Amino acid sequence: MTNDIATYIADVGRNARAASRIIGSASSARKSEALKRIAAAVDAARDNIRTENAKDMAAAEQHGIDQPLIDRLLLNDKGIDQMIEGLLQVDALREPVGEMSDFSYRPTGIQIGKMRVPLGVIAMIYESRPNVTVDAASLSLKSGNACILRGGSEAFHSNQAIAACVSQGLAAASLPEATVQLLNTTDRAAVGELLKLHEYVDVIVPRGGKGLIERISNESRIPVIKHLDGICHVYVDADADADMAVAIAYNSKVEKLAVCNAMETLLVHEAVADTVLRPLADQLVQAGIELRGCERAQAVVPMHAATQADWGEEYLGPILSIRVVDDMAAAIAHINRYGSQHTDVIVTENYTKSRAFIAQVDSASVMVNASTQFADGFEYGLGAEVGISTDKIHARGPVGLEGLTSQKYVVYGHGEIRHR
Amino acid sequence: MTNDIATYIADVGRNARAASRIIGSASSARKSEALKRIAAAVDAARDNIRTENAKDMAAAEQHGIDQPLIDRLLLNDKGIDQMIEGLLQVDALREPVGEMSDFSYRPTGIQIGKMRVPLGVIAMIYESRPNVTVDAASLSLKSGNACILRGGSEAFHSNQAIAACVSQGLAAASLPEATVQLLNTTDRAAVGELLKLHEYVDVIVPRGGKGLIERISNESRIPVIKHLDGICHVYVDADADADMAVAIAYNSKVEKLAVCNAMETLLVHEAVADTVLRPLADQLVQAGIELRGCERAQAVVPMHAATQADWGEEYLGPILSIRVVDDMAAAIAHINRYGSQHTDVIVTENYTKSRAFIAQVDSASVMVNASTQFADGFEYGLGAEVGISTDKIHARGPVGLEGLTSQKYVVYGHGEIRHR
Repeated sequence: MTNDIATYIADVGRNARAASRIIGSASSARKSEALKRIAAAVDAARDNIRTENAKDMAAAEQHGIDQPLIDRLLLNDKGIDQMIEGLLQVDALREPVGEMSDFSYRPTGIQIGKMRVPLGVIAMIYESRPNVTVDAASLSLKSGNACILRGGSEAFHSNQAIAACVSQGLAAASLPEATVQLLNTTDRAAVGELLKLHEYVDVIVPRGGKGLIERISNESRIPVIKHLDGICHVYVDADADADMAVAIAYNSKVEKLAVCNAMETLLVHEAVADTVLRPLADQLVQAGIELRGCERAQAVVPMHAATQADWGEEYLGPILSIRVVDDMAAAIAHINRYGSQHTDVIVTENYTKSRAFIAQVDSASVMVNASTQFADGFEYGLGAEVGISTDKIHARGPVGLEGLTSQKYVVYGHGEIRHR
Repeated sequence: MTNDIATYIADVGRNARAASRIIGSASSARKSEALKRIAAAVDAARDNIRTENAKDMAAAEQHGIDQPLIDRLLLNDKGIDQMIEGLLQVDALREPVGEMSDFSYRPTGIQIGKMRVPLGVIAMIYESRPNVTVDAASLSLKSGNACILRGGSEAFHSNQAIAACVSQGLAAASLPEATVQLLNTTDRAAVGELLKLHEYVDVIVPRGGKGLIERISNESRIPVIKHLDGICHVYVDADADADMAVAIAYNSKVEKLAVCNAMETLLVHEAVADTVLRPLADQLVQAGIELRGCERAQAVVPMHAATQADWGEEYLGPILSIRVVDDMAAAIAHINRYGSQHTDVIVTENYTKSRAFIAQVDSASVMVNASTQFADGFEYGLGAEVGISTDKIHARGPVGLEGLTSQKYVVYGHGEIRHR
């Protein structure tokens, strides 16, 4: 069995590499054709997708899976509409492959610049949201990469139905079906085999539990674009507009709870702890959020005591930790110590502090006067995202087409030789 | 002993992380001051640097080290001048940290763009060229990173003398000396300990043998900017200018032999095998180069037979493999199969083929009508380089300031909240 899986995964890798050579030099028109054909195939397969999704939903309910996970699993007509719209949005993005920039002459006479190129083969391991299958496939295709997708077992039937549409669309556009390969097994041994494919896979994008991501970083020699915790902060400065601060903090937490860009810790300058914390706490408690505060926060509003562990916790649920700080420096120190370099916000009307916060907070997204919940590929105009990187090299923040490509150097000469 | 080393390396890591917070937000003026002060300190320490270098040279000769390695070890007044010039060149580069770009409004009202930021802490492990100490220190400093340097044991005394100048310059500019830390041991256990510092080190740049780089990739969870083989090709097309082809091929091989950007395999279109190969082979043989060719190459000029192993060999010396190919497609297939994605050249006057070669050769540097030996940070205008990446993610080709930084997202809001 394990041998069979090893053989299967090696075949998938080899086929992906071969397909990557073709998709990497496919014209923009052909890739556009494929994206449109996939969208049409999804539209035509609505009944089948819903039927297959119903199987996953039934199994999930039978296994007593949590309601939030079941909600994410559901693919109704609105969800299918969104997948189709996502495909057409990615199609409408500017072609990234072959983009040439920064050409200038050197004193030797050569002219040097850069060309954007695909990474090659991307392997993506993700949780049970079936729409990720389409997002990953479309971004990977548009950026000229082949991809290997390993979706969550709970969405197995839904993912297979969607992948069939992707294959149809690719074939209709005369592109190799191996451009996008969804694994046909949920055996965990398949992941182990994938991690060994450094010859065929250029980058792995894991989306899922911390355990999975750490396992991959530890086990594999393949570079990883990590999507780790989102321990996001909103810092309400002394010079904040109080109403705006309440609205941003409330939205950052409550708009959606189980997402990596939800606020997990609120930091409030002591000068405005009273004016901001009182009305905000009322609203949060009404929304069912449990508050856990430092001593000074508890002195303003009755709430549970936060422990040291709370500052490093990604709740992904209806809990918020709150800390009153002496000044912005203390807020930045807290964020850089306990945060996960994902997304952090300052609410302030002060110009100098807005600049300092942006410069000094070492996170993938740093915002002034906006909700943490905007940290998302669609909201950033990337069309979609394959994940939100908390790494520092290659790609930070939402990873779209640019994160799936790199740049090579191009040199135009006229017969120049080098004299050392 | 090993315990001592573990403690020492952990201290180095902790100090580097602390220094990175300071250097990361240091003003451009202060960093400029430091680079000028380091240059002055090197100038003032000429006698000491030469004395310490003489110790390394004597030890190397005593140990019977190869002449090319001894040549690279030597630091004479010209070498010291070049180090000083390198520091001032890096100082003159545009400030990379805080560079903001691509700001545009989204339909939601937020404005989003990118800011260039340091990676944090860079660990560099390199061979015995003492000038690398200054190149790495200056690029790392300018890009706002702290660095940990582990130089080759043969250059131990030279490196320590140079590092003392770096420390002096940092101190004179009121920057932490831990911004640049050269390890004070050549114990190999120190490398093992460095590889464990994923909490403190953001990226490792190994320059050295393949064994070292593979060990690091296998052992460490820290991202690596790999500098692997340079199996560089020159392809002489049917439409090449014959004189230019001979000059470029000769220079690509002979200008310097033991460098990663030297040509290792020459590919010649069969239509010009006669006209190009004959005069070129004469010149190469006169320069002491051993030729190893395929059957068709041997039919043009008498030479040794190339074996299959030759196509994947980085000679770094006076040997060249030569293959006659049917057409450009065969040349590209050969390069993508046997090359190391480092630097590859086409010599042609044909517009369409020049475009196709650039698009289809999957290497960090692709050149038309220029010598492979130009693939170098100085020649590309990067001021210097910490290495030449053969990776596909993050940085490809010569790695300068840009490769030592990444970009974070900055969002300017006006109180926007997200409605999902």
